[in-house]
Amino acid sequence: MTHNPTNPTQHSLFQKVEQVRRRRAKVRDATITLAHGSGGKAMRDLIDDIFVGSFDNPLLAELEDQARVSLAELIAVGDRLAFTTDSYVVDPIFFPGGDIGSLAVHGTINDLAVSGAKPFYLSCSMILEEGLPVDALRRVARSMKAAADEAGVKIVTGDTKVVHRGSADKIFINTTGIGVIRPDVSISARNLQPGDKIIVNGYLGDHGAAILIARGELSFSSAIESDSQPLNSLVDAILDVCPEVRAMRDATRGGLATVLNEFALSSEVGIRLYESSMPVREEVQGICELLGLDPLYLANEGKLAVVVPSDRAQTVLAAMRAHPTAEKATIIGEVIDSPQGVVLMQTLFGTERIVDMLVGDQLPRIC
Amino acid sequence: MTHNPTNPTQHSLFQKVEQVRRRRAKVRDATITLAHGSGGKAMRDLIDDIFVGSFDNPLLAELEDQARVSLAELIAVGDRLAFTTDSYVVDPIFFPGGDIGSLAVHGTINDLAVSGAKPFYLSCSMILEEGLPVDALRRVARSMKAAADEAGVKIVTGDTKVVHRGSADKIFINTTGIGVIRPDVSISARNLQPGDKIIVNGYLGDHGAAILIARGELSFSSAIESDSQPLNSLVDAILDVCPEVRAMRDATRGGLATVLNEFALSSEVGIRLYESSMPVREEVQGICELLGLDPLYLANEGKLAVVVPSDRAQTVLAAMRAHPTAEKATIIGEVIDSPQGVVLMQTLFGTERIVDMLVGDQLPRIC
Repeated sequence: MTHNPTNPTQHSLFQKVEQVRRRRAKVRDATITLAHGSGGKAMRDLIDDIFVGSFDNPLLAELEDQARVSLAELIAVGDRLAFTTDSYVVDPIFFPGGDIGSLAVHGTINDLAVSGAKPFYLSCSMILEEGLPVDALRRVARSMKAAADEAGVKIVTGDTKVVHRGSADKIFINTTGIGVIRPDVSISARNLQPGDKIIVNGYLGDHGAAILIARGELSFSSAIESDSQPLNSLVDAILDVCPEVRAMRDATRGGLATVLNEFALSSEVGIRLYESSMPVREEVQGICELLGLDPLYLANEGKLAVVVPSDRAQTVLAAMRAHPTAEKATIIGEVIDSPQGVVLMQTLFGTERIVDMLVGDQLPRIC
Repeated sequence: MTHNPTNPTQHSLFQKVEQVRRRRAKVRDATITLAHGSGGKAMRDLIDDIFVGSFDNPLLAELEDQARVSLAELIAVGDRLAFTTDSYVVDPIFFPGGDIGSLAVHGTINDLAVSGAKPFYLSCSMILEEGLPVDALRRVARSMKAAADEAGVKIVTGDTKVVHRGSADKIFINTTGIGVIRPDVSISARNLQPGDKIIVNGYLGDHGAAILIARGELSFSSAIESDSQPLNSLVDAILDVCPEVRAMRDATRGGLATVLNEFALSSEVGIRLYESSMPVREEVQGICELLGLDPLYLANEGKLAVVVPSDRAQTVLAAMRAHPTAEKATIIGEVIDSPQGVVLMQTLFGTERIVDMLVGDQLPRIC
């Protein structure tokens, strides 16, 4: 059957076709509506405009339901894939030092990097609350793109859902990442050996403290910014001088205390920290004292704990301090035989106390 | 410094160590609390119990912050990786024919499969609302495991966040998947050629109708179940007889109408559907007529549209009908030269109407 414009029925059909095509111009809503998650025209326009427009890469622009990438490019780097996922629910979504978008990119890149992986690709899945200003979403998407560019990774596939007002808190973002692990490394929480040194790359608790203050529920303000940053370049610098790194992890939710407890439990060793060496900004320490918090449990989004053999510690420390993300790198403790599974702190007064895993709720909900 | 139990300070430290170890027994809370997302002890217990316990695979049990898998195993299957993400926000979380857990596994597997990929690994990231019964979470996790087992995929990495009561709707799940595309296929929404036939694997709209009714907002009940199912085995059967498949996509949000509009737009062709061939259950058709809905826009979670060269259509149809997930497979339309980017329906009355993309909101929020 061909379309014959002289047939009156067909003529009216062609007019409708033109109407449909005209409706496919971009919409410019001010806020997110349920239609933007419907799978239909409004969603396609939103994806074209905000995500394809901001993330700007050919894989995403194909708008298939999955990204397709070359395995040859990956296997040229190593023979082990690292695969990690994280959902970000931070409130507020914009805060000093970053926003939920840059955080979602940094966090997942860092989870790849600490395994010794070069991060390649990220997915981005958003759950949006009806009523979210479209401009806020645009700002978050641009921030994700900038963060991904800085770290040399690509956002190649995505998904958008919209839920009724009150069924989510503005924006939740899931990023899932793929990287390839360097062939010369074997990093695991199970590898700690007595005598190993523990190093962190700088001040602890900045992210947690910045979020606490950004909520505006406290009666004071401060200049503390989140430390949200990508750590893949720092990890490269560490592994270049010390491929024999035992364990490495970014100290996010639960803070440094939780990471070290997990190390101690997994490796069945003890850990002794030196309170005198713990890098905490005076301002963060002050906030913690006011609120009865411990900076060791505050979240960081650009800090890692790395465990290295004792005889490599000074070399690693020097390499870290030469890197812009680790100028304040410090040896904060050592691995000990016993008590197994327990982290001890040698206090400023010379006594020892236990630094337990976080029990109960963390204040605030910060990553 | 060694620990000397005869030293009174050290003796009391050892008692504390024992207390801390005892506290690390499993907790058995009845509902999810903010502590379960804190990064600390309660979260570790929850992950050990619910996720490591249910998903039961060694990669996850290592509890590193990233899964590490062999690239050699992947490259043995093909040289292109498929990578896809989806967040699931379905309400209610349990419904006839499935739940949010099985849906989250099926949906992401299907997004991999329709590219011609063998699905290998899934991540699972959950956003939980404070107050969610722990038993509901356990049931969802078990359902995910069963769905993954059925499809031959492994859930290898995960994340859990808990948000304040009212900041999310019970459970949101993100699953992100990795698969490897068969070397002999090239499937894309851009590949349609005039003359190609369009086949679906069975009844349309079951998932959308089942969710509508499961919400209990309508005054009638029905026996309609969601069609949620994994399609990777069906896709294998199709590609085994027809590696020259042009395009394939599962018809989820926005329904079949949206998928076909995307095909027509991407390939710059027209599509003509035959209303007389459209497989819709009488019960679903009845509900649609009552509510003024069109089954072509209802979501499916186990249905795909496959476009094949005309001379391969009967072979593909026969292979599909021999598969348990496609007994009702039907040729529903064909690709035409023009009007480009438009889907037409040849109605039962012999006239033609436009089947546009979904404009505005889909009813209900169903995937």
